[in-house]
Amino acid sequence: MSELKVNYQTDPSQYKHIKLSIEGNIARLTIDIDEDSGIRPGYKLKLNSYDLGVDIELHDALNRIRFEHPEVRSVVVSSGKDRIFCSGANIFMLGLSSHAWKVNFCKFTNETRNGIEDTSEHSGVKFIAAVNGACAGGGYELALACDEIYLVDDRSSSVSLPEVPLLGVLPGTGGLTRVTDKRKVRHDHADIFCTLVEGIRGQRAKDWKLVDEVVKTAKFQDTINARAAELAEQNGSVEQAKGIGLTPLEKHEAADSLHYKYVSVDIDRAGKFATFTLRGPEGELPDNIDAIVAAGMNWWPLQMARELDDAILSMRTNELDSGLWLIKTAGSAEVVLKSDDILLNNKDHWFVRETLGLLRRAFARLDVSSRSLFALVEEGSCFAGSLLEPALACDRIYMLTLPDDENRTPHIAAGPMNFGFLPMVTSQSRLARRFYDDSDALEKIKGLAGTGLDGDQAEKAGLVTYALDDIDWAEEVRMAIEERVSMSPDALTGMEANLRFNGPENMLTRIFGRLTAWQNWIFIRPNAVGERGALKLYGKGEKPHFDQNRV
Amino acid sequence: MSELKVNYQTDPSQYKHIKLSIEGNIARLTIDIDEDSGIRPGYKLKLNSYDLGVDIELHDALNRIRFEHPEVRSVVVSSGKDRIFCSGANIFMLGLSSHAWKVNFCKFTNETRNGIEDTSEHSGVKFIAAVNGACAGGGYELALACDEIYLVDDRSSSVSLPEVPLLGVLPGTGGLTRVTDKRKVRHDHADIFCTLVEGIRGQRAKDWKLVDEVVKTAKFQDTINARAAELAEQNGSVEQAKGIGLTPLEKHEAADSLHYKYVSVDIDRAGKFATFTLRGPEGELPDNIDAIVAAGMNWWPLQMARELDDAILSMRTNELDSGLWLIKTAGSAEVVLKSDDILLNNKDHWFVRETLGLLRRAFARLDVSSRSLFALVEEGSCFAGSLLEPALACDRIYMLTLPDDENRTPHIAAGPMNFGFLPMVTSQSRLARRFYDDSDALEKIKGLAGTGLDGDQAEKAGLVTYALDDIDWAEEVRMAIEERVSMSPDALTGMEANLRFNGPENMLTRIFGRLTAWQNWIFIRPNAVGERGALKLYGKGEKPHFDQNRV
Repeated sequence: MSELKVNYQTDPSQYKHIKLSIEGNIARLTIDIDEDSGIRPGYKLKLNSYDLGVDIELHDALNRIRFEHPEVRSVVVSSGKDRIFCSGANIFMLGLSSHAWKVNFCKFTNETRNGIEDTSEHSGVKFIAAVNGACAGGGYELALACDEIYLVDDRSSSVSLPEVPLLGVLPGTGGLTRVTDKRKVRHDHADIFCTLVEGIRGQRAKDWKLVDEVVKTAKFQDTINARAAELAEQNGSVEQAKGIGLTPLEKHEAADSLHYKYVSVDIDRAGKFATFTLRGPEGELPDNIDAIVAAGMNWWPLQMARELDDAILSMRTNELDSGLWLIKTAGSAEVVLKSDDILLNNKDHWFVRETLGLLRRAFARLDVSSRSLFALVEEGSCFAGSLLEPALACDRIYMLTLPDDENRTPHIAAGPMNFGFLPMVTSQSRLARRFYDDSDALEKIKGLAGTGLDGDQAEKAGLVTYALDDIDWAEEVRMAIEERVSMSPDALTGMEANLRFNGPENMLTRIFGRLTAWQNWIFIRPNAVGERGALKLYGKGEKPHFDQNRV
Repeated sequence: MSELKVNYQTDPSQYKHIKLSIEGNIARLTIDIDEDSGIRPGYKLKLNSYDLGVDIELHDALNRIRFEHPEVRSVVVSSGKDRIFCSGANIFMLGLSSHAWKVNFCKFTNETRNGIEDTSEHSGVKFIAAVNGACAGGGYELALACDEIYLVDDRSSSVSLPEVPLLGVLPGTGGLTRVTDKRKVRHDHADIFCTLVEGIRGQRAKDWKLVDEVVKTAKFQDTINARAAELAEQNGSVEQAKGIGLTPLEKHEAADSLHYKYVSVDIDRAGKFATFTLRGPEGELPDNIDAIVAAGMNWWPLQMARELDDAILSMRTNELDSGLWLIKTAGSAEVVLKSDDILLNNKDHWFVRETLGLLRRAFARLDVSSRSLFALVEEGSCFAGSLLEPALACDRIYMLTLPDDENRTPHIAAGPMNFGFLPMVTSQSRLARRFYDDSDALEKIKGLAGTGLDGDQAEKAGLVTYALDDIDWAEEVRMAIEERVSMSPDALTGMEANLRFNGPENMLTRIFGRLTAWQNWIFIRPNAVGERGALKLYGKGEKPHFDQNRV
């Protein structure tokens, strides 16, 4: 694979694979993949199969729906091709990809699909998979992320997860987990389904709960239209507001840095780490909903979240050697808390709700990033409220104290935002995760909300890992960084994935933690990726050779 | 590693590493490992480090306590060596081992540690880790499985999980998970602890919840003795019964088979599968507690469970190429149900309770065995009650129907045992797992309890996957077997691990599903096991070389 950097920013005028159209309160996402426009060279995206480039468009289209089309209440996902809905991730692309590329690609695809469910839950926008042709692998996993699945009954179209029998890998983009956790397919039926190359169609697909309805070809389009209208009606009546245009982010990319207005990333290649700096809002804050809407995409919470989202995605894909991300902030804690207050005061407005959603999803990307995360609380920082969340997402928080200088010593502050408005994918707040839902500990922190805490106070409250004075600071932080980047990146990834998700489990943690871990293992086993592995040999007419040892 | 078969049966007279002594209602398990008695050649078990052979003794000793010493109410686990409690799994053994050996070893070690907690919960026998010296890696994981951890304060002994920084692998025998889920160590403290080679000692170990108490050397032994007596008292007063001797199982091993009285395993090497046959009780059933106790280890539920336990462990370790286990039964369903009734009528007696525990743990091994499991319900079978459980543990259940012969057509039957007395490690019954806790479905099955169901009735009730008449049976079953064993063993292992645990998560599923999957991945990555990987180079004085790509 070439070393070209991946750019996660796009807009509908640049789409090659997805068509987004709006009719009243219904959006249509039509998958019509241009087989010659893979994001990397070397493969053709036949049979409506996808690669990272397609998912970047899907991710963008979902954000367009959320922000530019608030009137939309239901979304129909279907195919623009004849007799094929989607055949999943392109297998030749997977065969050509490095382990890291495959894993990162799956993670982003997972996050996008989870985003569909996040929007269904939080924004009440309902998704229908209108499966108007064969639907295999990642295609069915996309359908599974929708609220309802309608399968055309044309005597040939089936739903299938052929990864295990065909490729020797798992349906790893949520497929195995959603079949059980979401659709509650009985485990023996799931076992048969997931080992059946040709999949299941017709009435059995419905009986086994793999789809919600099967509909004859002649009635299919009408049924989908009627159901989309019905769902839009049931979840209806957002104020008929005008959307907010998601204009392109201003991004300045240099060899070792990535700068946006509120987010900067500086890469230390020799040190094997990168520093993220999130800046608080500047200037006067819009303090009512009209002013917020007028600010639009320049509204600080939204712009910062979009920038952070893009920075995380870029760094994950393009900078694999930065194994440690240092998180810093710069600005006024008071102003961040004030901005949070304004946001929460207006949280029932659709635009604020969507902004909160983007913030929630951007911070949640940190939790599942396979990078060590250390927060450094330094002079001039503003780890407060919404900007305390990225610190709470970190594996460790180091905080400077200047005991002799009360004015310059940094402070952190919890705020209302930290108590449930920006939860992890577990629906648990990061504070509740930190204190294992201990209500006494959480009540104490609540009592401190809005109060700036210096290092010693913060350490005593359990909010930071270590408070260090200026005599120790530079040396301790340097050593912590050097030690961290000297360890095995794989062991750290596995350790962090376990320690960060110490709280309740749900479908998403099972996808990110359990399914992904198994898939990572399988993605590196000779039975899949060896010279005679199933993934490697797919389409070449040779039978794979398996080491039969069960492990 | 040599190809010698591993034998999981032992008894205290053969122990080389563990001393079991009983004083009144307190048992002492003393770890005093003979460094020259590794189960395989090529390494020395220095510093009280362990290998599979040590864990086989530990597993046996726990069963001795359960059955031979019912008076025991607390267990002190300590070291017989000076200044070292246990340094964990032997690293040179790990370095020499195949991937499959490592994974299987960890699984058994996990099951034994989980068994400690199982006995604490179900039998009220409390475990104290008396950490009388350095306690590292798997040594600390053993301590974590105990109810309480006492650490000697001798200014040098620490607890540590040095796997990540030292070996580039995870503390994979529950360490990462128990530190969070069980001990509720704050995740940033856990992050520091798990990356600190030298570990943590003294007051900080207590402050961070890594241990329950730190006690000065001079007072250590007295404190442990007092606490053991206190715990025994609190959980006391089992009737002062005489234990039941666990005499050796009669086991006939041939090249392709393993036969016990109630369990047989026949290996089809060409077909890549093995057939387990579990036989129901024979002759007159002991029908009161005195008769049960008199039967002792020959009591059918206990003997069958011990045989099955041993057969599963043997097949897992010694027959890696049998990727599919067919589960059959032979006997009378009525007699099995009657035997279950007798057992449940006496379930408050300690011997019956322990027998139920062994049954529960033996069946639970099936759930986490990395083998495909198909139950075949044939003529003469007795899939009823407790013997329905192994079928419910299977990925699929095929049932023969003989529509023209009401007498010969096989029947299955649910019974009271299937409703919570033999749960999975999730505490969920396999029936509840099957029906996603749907109370209507479960009530329907409850209504059918005790009733023999033929294939069509069983399929309609959702209890079997397919009912097949004798015209289709042989061909369909043959094809299902052939298809299964033609697929990638790794993909099947990952798929089954996901589909079987579709219900609630708890610490144990997180250990088996999440932690294990990450460890499997890391165990095969070049950063751990490559020529320059950390695990491979440990002790050789060379620094490992890491591919820095984060995945």
